[in-house]
Amino acid sequence: MKSDIPVTSLQRLPVYLNYLKTSGDGDQYISSGAIARALDMGEVLVRKDLAYTSAQGRTRVGYKREELIAALEDYLGCNDRKNAVIFGAGGLGCALLSYGGFKNYGIDVVAAFDNDKNKIGTEVDGKPVMDAAQACEGIAALGAKLAVICVPARYAQSVADLLINCGVRSILNFAPVLLKVPEGFTVRNIDVAANLAILSSLS
Amino acid sequence: MKSDIPVTSLQRLPVYLNYLKTSGDGDQYISSGAIARALDMGEVLVRKDLAYTSAQGRTRVGYKREELIAALEDYLGCNDRKNAVIFGAGGLGCALLSYGGFKNYGIDVVAAFDNDKNKIGTEVDGKPVMDAAQACEGIAALGAKLAVICVPARYAQSVADLLINCGVRSILNFAPVLLKVPEGFTVRNIDVAANLAILSSLS
Repeated sequence: MKSDIPVTSLQRLPVYLNYLKTSGDGDQYISSGAIARALDMGEVLVRKDLAYTSAQGRTRVGYKREELIAALEDYLGCNDRKNAVIFGAGGLGCALLSYGGFKNYGIDVVAAFDNDKNKIGTEVDGKPVMDAAQACEGIAALGAKLAVICVPARYAQSVADLLINCGVRSILNFAPVLLKVPEGFTVRNIDVAANLAILSSLS
Repeated sequence: MKSDIPVTSLQRLPVYLNYLKTSGDGDQYISSGAIARALDMGEVLVRKDLAYTSAQGRTRVGYKREELIAALEDYLGCNDRKNAVIFGAGGLGCALLSYGGFKNYGIDVVAAFDNDKNKIGTEVDGKPVMDAAQACEGIAALGAKLAVICVPARYAQSVADLLINCGVRSILNFAPVLLKVPEGFTVRNIDVAANLAILSSLS
């Protein structure tokens, strides 16, 4: 079902959700036009995107705000708790371990893995840094299907291979390399430096 | 000139650059077809994207690898040094201060700003954490036109307003809110949690 939605639409759903959650002005209803204006988007696009969820807009009044939030949360799986792990407990990995924003999407980042003996056995924000050599046992015990790769670029593909072998289905990759994963698995890349470079090219 | 390129094409240029830099197999030439296959993209798309740069492909042999790298680096401004600052010296901000990947794109992350008295005056990886109350003077002295926002969501808009006032042209925003900036300024958002949520919806 979810594979019917274009990825570009799916990427906008968290934006709508964020907006609805942070813009509560006491009104019970909100129209697609109001959302479109606030987010500087086209109204038809907003309506099409929201049509992928179970939310029902009403002529003239728009969406019931609470229902729309619930429909978006449901679609994005915010109500199903999912465990995720971080691979690489360096600066970025540790920052993500203690980042609170994942909870809004039903994601619990429960542990990190690293191969540095000085880090293994420590905790960050109450979450354990575990031995990368025992990643499969750890991931199975934690029931994690999501993982975030925060290792240097040259190790990222071998970590991805390991994670796939350990039962991880989806990988968020911060290493500036393109990862290959078998069909049926998903990877998203966040190349922070490339994003900043793109910005500076535009300005 | 740069505004002619579609943002989606611009976003792919760092991917090509990364691939070319990390896949060197000694061959002097590389074809758009080989790049397309390696990155699992369409060949026509690759050729179109690369046509925005100054690189000239030759029939049958393709691009001279070194020339293509140089053309991409030139287009992305990797050879113009640019200073960037981080706003918010928490976990993520500090991780980015010590992240080496920016240098590949000609970006020097030179300082962070924070309002926490315990952080002001300290250093991370040799880079100073400065007083947010003196951001304008600091940004002017450093000549920074790029900034990365790593503060909690509720402060992000006021930090963006401040940065724009201080002469920053482009903002990379990690806070999970949509920022408003005046026309002529650019913002890119990286919502880490939303990215992980999108992945988990797809899997």
